Amino acid sequence: MARDPKHDILFEPIDIGPKTLRNRFYQVPHCIGAGSDKPGFQAAHRSMKAEGGWSGINTEYLSIHPESDDTHRLSARLWDEGDVRNLRAMTDYIHKYDALAGVEMWYGGSHAPCMESRCTPRGPSQYASEFETMTYCKEMDLDDIEMVQGYYVDAARRARDAGFDIVYVYGAHSYLPLQFLSPYYNKRTDKYGGSLENRARFWIETLEKVKKAVGDECAIATRFAVDTLIADAGVEVEEDGLKFVELADPFVDVWDVNVGDIAEWGEDAGPSRFYRQGHQIPWQKYIKQVSKKPVLGVGRFTDPEKMAEVIRAGHLDIIGAARPSIADPFLPQKIDEGRADDIRTCIGCNVCISRWEIGGPPMICTQNATSGEEYRRGWHPEKFPKAGSDDSFLVVGSGPSGSECARVLMERGYTVHLVDDGDKIGGHINDVASLPGLGEWGYHRDYREVQLGKLVKKNKESQIALGASRLGVDDCLEYGADKIIIASGAQWNTDGTNALTHDPIQGIDASLPTHLTPEQVFAGDKPIGKKVMILNCDPYFMAPSLAQKLHEAGHEVTIATGVGLGHYMHFTLEAPNMHRMLHEFGIEVIGDVWASQAEANRIQLYPIFGDGYRREYRGPGKLPRRENTHFDWHEFDSLVLVTGRHSDCELFNGLKARKDEWAGNDVKGVYVIGDAWAPKLMADATFDGHRLAREIEGSDPQHPEPYIREVAVWGTPHMPGGKFEIEYES
Amino acid sequence: MARDPKHDILFEPIDIGPKTLRNRFYQVPHCIGAGSDKPGFQAAHRSMKAEGGWSGINTEYLSIHPESDDTHRLSARLWDEGDVRNLRAMTDYIHKYDALAGVEMWYGGSHAPCMESRCTPRGPSQYASEFETMTYCKEMDLDDIEMVQGYYVDAARRARDAGFDIVYVYGAHSYLPLQFLSPYYNKRTDKYGGSLENRARFWIETLEKVKKAVGDECAIATRFAVDTLIADAGVEVEEDGLKFVELADPFVDVWDVNVGDIAEWGEDAGPSRFYRQGHQIPWQKYIKQVSKKPVLGVGRFTDPEKMAEVIRAGHLDIIGAARPSIADPFLPQKIDEGRADDIRTCIGCNVCISRWEIGGPPMICTQNATSGEEYRRGWHPEKFPKAGSDDSFLVVGSGPSGSECARVLMERGYTVHLVDDGDKIGGHINDVASLPGLGEWGYHRDYREVQLGKLVKKNKESQIALGASRLGVDDCLEYGADKIIIASGAQWNTDGTNALTHDPIQGIDASLPTHLTPEQVFAGDKPIGKKVMILNCDPYFMAPSLAQKLHEAGHEVTIATGVGLGHYMHFTLEAPNMHRMLHEFGIEVIGDVWASQAEANRIQLYPIFGDGYRREYRGPGKLPRRENTHFDWHEFDSLVLVTGRHSDCELFNGLKARKDEWAGNDVKGVYVIGDAWAPKLMADATFDGHRLAREIEGSDPQHPEPYIREVAVWGTPHMPGGKFEIEYES
Repeated sequence: MARDPKHDILFEPIDIGPKTLRNRFYQVPHCIGAGSDKPGFQAAHRSMKAEGGWSGINTEYLSIHPESDDTHRLSARLWDEGDVRNLRAMTDYIHKYDALAGVEMWYGGSHAPCMESRCTPRGPSQYASEFETMTYCKEMDLDDIEMVQGYYVDAARRARDAGFDIVYVYGAHSYLPLQFLSPYYNKRTDKYGGSLENRARFWIETLEKVKKAVGDECAIATRFAVDTLIADAGVEVEEDGLKFVELADPFVDVWDVNVGDIAEWGEDAGPSRFYRQGHQIPWQKYIKQVSKKPVLGVGRFTDPEKMAEVIRAGHLDIIGAARPSIADPFLPQKIDEGRADDIRTCIGCNVCISRWEIGGPPMICTQNATSGEEYRRGWHPEKFPKAGSDDSFLVVGSGPSGSECARVLMERGYTVHLVDDGDKIGGHINDVASLPGLGEWGYHRDYREVQLGKLVKKNKESQIALGASRLGVDDCLEYGADKIIIASGAQWNTDGTNALTHDPIQGIDASLPTHLTPEQVFAGDKPIGKKVMILNCDPYFMAPSLAQKLHEAGHEVTIATGVGLGHYMHFTLEAPNMHRMLHEFGIEVIGDVWASQAEANRIQLYPIFGDGYRREYRGPGKLPRRENTHFDWHEFDSLVLVTGRHSDCELFNGLKARKDEWAGNDVKGVYVIGDAWAPKLMADATFDGHRLAREIEGSDPQHPEPYIREVAVWGTPHMPGGKFEIEYES
Repeated sequence: MARDPKHDILFEPIDIGPKTLRNRFYQVPHCIGAGSDKPGFQAAHRSMKAEGGWSGINTEYLSIHPESDDTHRLSARLWDEGDVRNLRAMTDYIHKYDALAGVEMWYGGSHAPCMESRCTPRGPSQYASEFETMTYCKEMDLDDIEMVQGYYVDAARRARDAGFDIVYVYGAHSYLPLQFLSPYYNKRTDKYGGSLENRARFWIETLEKVKKAVGDECAIATRFAVDTLIADAGVEVEEDGLKFVELADPFVDVWDVNVGDIAEWGEDAGPSRFYRQGHQIPWQKYIKQVSKKPVLGVGRFTDPEKMAEVIRAGHLDIIGAARPSIADPFLPQKIDEGRADDIRTCIGCNVCISRWEIGGPPMICTQNATSGEEYRRGWHPEKFPKAGSDDSFLVVGSGPSGSECARVLMERGYTVHLVDDGDKIGGHINDVASLPGLGEWGYHRDYREVQLGKLVKKNKESQIALGASRLGVDDCLEYGADKIIIASGAQWNTDGTNALTHDPIQGIDASLPTHLTPEQVFAGDKPIGKKVMILNCDPYFMAPSLAQKLHEAGHEVTIATGVGLGHYMHFTLEAPNMHRMLHEFGIEVIGDVWASQAEANRIQLYPIFGDGYRREYRGPGKLPRRENTHFDWHEFDSLVLVTGRHSDCELFNGLKARKDEWAGNDVKGVYVIGDAWAPKLMADATFDGHRLAREIEGSDPQHPEPYIREVAVWGTPHMPGGKFEIEYES
């Protein structure tokens, strides 16, 4: 198919300094867990986007010197020649696709804990980071300023040597240049503090020096939070924001603009729970009023209509993207080919980001199971190995893992019957996407629904059977499929079984009219009373989301929780606004408690840390501490049980138990994936289905094959010419 | 000097299976952030202990298969031939010193989040980990059991091939074998669940299989939490504990016994705040009643008298140690040579452990600045490069950084004057060690006091001037030293300046009689009223410790905190008992609040998440949210200000400002270290002093020299014969 002419504007080239972007699709710097330490991962993940049509592609934030060391998190680094060698793999692969490669030069100041390098970071003034509340920086004197600016210049030269086309001076997310600019950090009284001109001096001098060093060969970019969202305590777009852009514009070839800070950077990488596509435009749009240079920015842009509109309206020149490029590296190509319905639209869950926040395991994506697997497993999101046999497949369950598994098997050319007793593809996503703010999560289902529809048309022997009666063990054995894949999902526990005690709670029973599992809340068949207690032992979104849903339906909600409420939402950047929301709604959270017993209309809670802090051996049957004596009854009309989940694996276990009947029924294998294997993140369930479909011909398809590991090799120094023997100073 | 005959028992050899330990000093498995991925770090750190006299030395926990992947944390791994190659560096170096090398084979079950491998872990039953509350395991069927036992056997063979002498089946800290043994996890009804014999079956079968595979060449060890400290909900030493030891004894060559679980493993690695040396003996001592094999165990043993006593009493055969071996790798040699006063005694602060809990930055040690630096910086704890010049040094301040810097300079042969206006070496340690439970932290000071005393005797030109009048800029310039090192420390803020606002708080003023800094509390000159409010914005121990101190002195204490109270104490394993203690004392904690203003006897607090959760642009000067309207006054008699710190860097800045006068005064350089540079952990301040003393001849001694980095090298595959090209399945 041909490109929609309305989208032509997205494919016009644009100059940035000495370089030209061949279209308006631009992958801004974002973390993936590769840095310069996993060069194959870095090169393959980024060049996949070049292949998919993005014309500018960056590393994650890139440390310019050991003094800006984000360990325990994982940044890229350009500290030495070893890093140059490793990052050159990325630029070489990106250049094959006529795209530009960029680095985001980063100096974190007190936001960099330096747990590896053990350096002392420097900043405009001395303060403890609001992000790393135990890390303080040294207030820079004039020697320090010159030295740190020199770090930027040295790193820029190394970036050029590594083949990069675009070099950022990174100020957004409250890093060093913005720390000088913002009065929130900068308390100086010399020529680098006070007036806007003084506060801007460090940033502008740095840009000037970097431009002088590499500006003929590289485009100079800067990433700028044009509003730090704390009113006049920080940077405001219509005040210092615009004034700074005017001052710095001569030294910048392209502006990358966003809003927010580092402690709440979910205001930039807005989760779909709180923010829609283009949510930063009300701030970003000011920049083109004063800048003579191209301006780009992010906003979880996934819709080509919206992208073209933003450019036509003059808000931005270039569409920046991080998450949408992860969910679909081929987004530009699909728009170019008029195949917008093939785009795997980012759902805005921020699970990709969660891995950086955790500290740098490889990035995962809920929509795109191949993300992060390009190099180590050799997975391409749009190419699939041809079927290795004529085997036919029965996939039971069309949730995240089942629908993905069926899709990939069909892409490979296998005949697949996907059977679900639900009326709609998606399994529990259909419930989840009905929660307040989570509607976009339904894109996960929508993508698979569309693709499966297309695939079934190509292979007439495949079929999708929805609203089917639930299959039993006999049904499966007799179905006629060579291989059976069970993706029957998981359910919430009905008896209070939980991560803290691994046992049921006395008196909790979802068959009572006043006790409800989340599924029962979704089903809506059981009346829910005015006063609702949610008992929570799950660290993710279910309890806060149900609290919101029930509050909005007029209930008075209290949450009693044995684990940090929505703890994982800290990693997805949803936590601060979730806490604000609960506060605004007046939802009481009783923390650090667990339940000892319950009745129809009341529950007994105790403090988790209620026993004595002194320990001594007291003999068998006795807790080695003073036992807790605090127990409080709390009344409710309805109790909602977010205590834990269990796999719905009866069908798989039943088939496994009758393994001796497989051969007689011409069944060659039975496999389990997703939550039916063990309850897990939607991203991991999707991965399970994808992986099984790719590895189905292996010797043990149930379990993943080894992947390439990128770690140090004893005997091979990181630095060209470096040593590796153990030698002590003496 | 000669060894004290009372300690001879510690130097008797002992057989463990086919191997012999040449003495009773044994470094149990413990994490350092090296694993198999940083082979030089691993080899150098562990072999340093072999050189220092430990006869058995282990890796950290070692994953046997990608299904047990602890990413984001860092374990060792024996997954493939690449790991064998990397770990062989460690065994080769250890064997040079006639010591045995061991691995602790680990399968985590649901405690392993598998964020890198994306595998689904298996367990005896299905549950969410109480440690990783979002990770569930699959309940094993009989095929699974056989397969996972096969993983242990395969890893044991690889361990043998890598040169290891001791192979553990690791059950302590609630890993897989213990999950089968403990009814807390095991809910099975088949032959692997129910009775003790059934619950023990998995562990014993695994030991048997491993012994069969490698038992002729390697000693078989097992690490067993003999009591999980949750009474009959888990394993109790006098019940299942002893029964299991009896059953498994024939298959074990050496027992490594401790107590506790993984969620609260500070009950094993007990911080000195709560536990003394040998605190596990009341449980460990039972094992030798039933076992015919050598028994070892840890208990932060640092005192040779206590060690010898424990062996003579028949409680243990071998002294296990992790932390004491980190603080002083030469502990056995020093005992052997009758130099017990030279031991750097572990202070039990658990900062070493905090790095693993954070996720695996290189381990650091408060006492031993060379720990973790052996390979990458070439630092040996007992060897120092000879002085590179005749320069004389003035070190101002004898806290952690100043005393360490002076010590290392003197070890190198430099002449040093260490000057402090305090009456005692140690700086703020003297205050800290006076806090309840923190007395052992004073060992940091004590070690340096003893060493400096010895060094001053060797070099008559060096001196330690205590109780001196505070030196000013002129005093320093005119002192006559070639180089001046400022280690003047930091102070707590007097005006409420904090990490959240980076500004003072209106009305807070430590010159008021009712507002006190921690220093003022320690000094004891200002009366403190009955009702105390502690305002906290520090994530470590000061607020809870002062709360304890003031509670014990009869005050009614409330803590209002803007950051997680004692957040870093989660990483040092002090948090659970700290929370229990505050609960027991009735100390109220008001969380997620900050202060807007204060008066002499009241403070106004507001909820941090009190503003609206919806955001929109409202123009300059306006918060882009509904502003918080909740402000509450709280009354107090005394307000204690734990809001933040600032460097006492006036002297350094003054010297820096008069740089043009240095040459005229024959001053070649002025440097700043420790908290005076920027407030930091005591471990990092100590590091600063040590590093400067080692790198003082460099071109820029103020800033650290580069270190060896052990990361992947593009073009060099991890697996011998492995690939590194980017290749996609298609």
